[in-house]
Amino acid sequence: MKSKKINGGYIIKLEKDEKIIESLTKFLEEKQIKNGFFVGLGALSKVELALYRLKDKKYFFKEFEEALEISSLHGNVFLKEGKPFIHVHIVVSDENMITKGGHLKEAIVSATCEIIFIEFSGEIKKEYSEEIGLWLLDI
Amino acid sequence: MKSKKINGGYIIKLEKDEKIIESLTKFLEEKQIKNGFFVGLGALSKVELALYRLKDKKYFFKEFEEALEISSLHGNVFLKEGKPFIHVHIVVSDENMITKGGHLKEAIVSATCEIIFIEFSGEIKKEYSEEIGLWLLDI
Amino acid sequence: MKSKKINGGYIIKLEKDEKIIESLTKFLEEKQIKNGFFVGLGALSKVELALYRLKDKKYFFKEFEEALEISSLHGNVFLKEGKPFIHVHIVVSDENMITKGGHLKEAIVSATCEIIFIEFSGEIKKEYSEEIGLWLLDI
Repeated sequence: MKSKKINGGYIIKLEKDEKIIESLTKFLEEKQIKNGFFVGLGALSKVELALYRLKDKKYFFKEFEEALEISSLHGNVFLKEGKPFIHVHIVVSDENMITKGGHLKEAIVSATCEIIFIEFSGEIKKEYSEEIGLWLLDI
Repeated sequence: MKSKKINGGYIIKLEKDEKIIESLTKFLEEKQIKNGFFVGLGALSKVELALYRLKDKKYFFKEFEEALEISSLHGNVFLKEGKPFIHVHIVVSDENMITKGGHLKEAIVSATCEIIFIEFSGEIKKEYSEEIGLWLLDI
Repeated sequence: MKSKKINGGYIIKLEKDEKIIESLTKFLEEKQIKNGFFVGLGALSKVELALYRLKDKKYFFKEFEEALEISSLHGNVFLKEGKPFIHVHIVVSDENMITKGGHLKEAIVSATCEIIFIEFSGEIKKEYSEEIGLWLLDI
């Protein structure tokens, strides 16, 4: 993973075989970034997607391992127990341009992944909601 | 709906059973925001999507009521007859991670919806186009 | 294509029958914009999508010609051999709200296309990677 500071944020490049969530989490800890959001595009060799079923209060996962484009990738970063916590949703498309999407558990980059990260000041936190079963924005 | 001012915009949290378009429209009127754009992620219990058929000059709608992730959500705000007017497009995914998408008429939040709203100065308006049958950017 | 300067970037409107990549490339050259990113929404009459197969080091293309919504559109701009180079990924949806996605080769606008373009300072370049077979971020 490489990054370059721009006004208001960072340009990030993930390289072949790097994991998106793992790499970005490390990046945020190194740069001591607390809050921000990002968009990205690129290609993957593998992705694990999730759907949250509120009635069961848990995520259900599916894995796809094939040549995939990142058709859309959005994420945000807030503080969870003092550390930057990444939340990413994604749409991927296969060789027939058919799309799958959901909450991103993890993904492995193939050709490249280009991310524009916008940092914002403040210390917005997440707090655990017993009712929902997830860490939600504490605002 | 809760919101918090950040530099350049707002962080918005929509809660269980809130409607996205209705809530955001109210938020913009309260904050007197004229122009901006936003991205979001979260989960829905129901969504009404639309496709605009230019040859008929009208929208065609479909409703989906099930556990859905917001895989992608983009919107913008411009002035229509003096009031902030929201335009949102969305991609949702179901329990098989299969996606649907389109123009968002309305959606009901399930677990949560996290929106990053970026405001920009100015008073960019929409004007009605007889040729297209829609309110388009007046620039 | 029409555009209006806002703080930090531009609002861009593409009109019926305009090509997205061609129009934006011309816009960037005229405005001498080197780096930025953008999001957009709107509708298309035709789109050519691509998937990059790393093992073959080439793109595979598919064309769709029908009434389509731009459910999601993300792009970035970096310098390639001194000129602004656009990289766009897209998700489109048809009259059944079924989505297709991928790398955007080109698209023809139908009703309208509204783009928020955020410029950032600097001169971040792309360099050709023999290993990957693509122009990647030089950071």
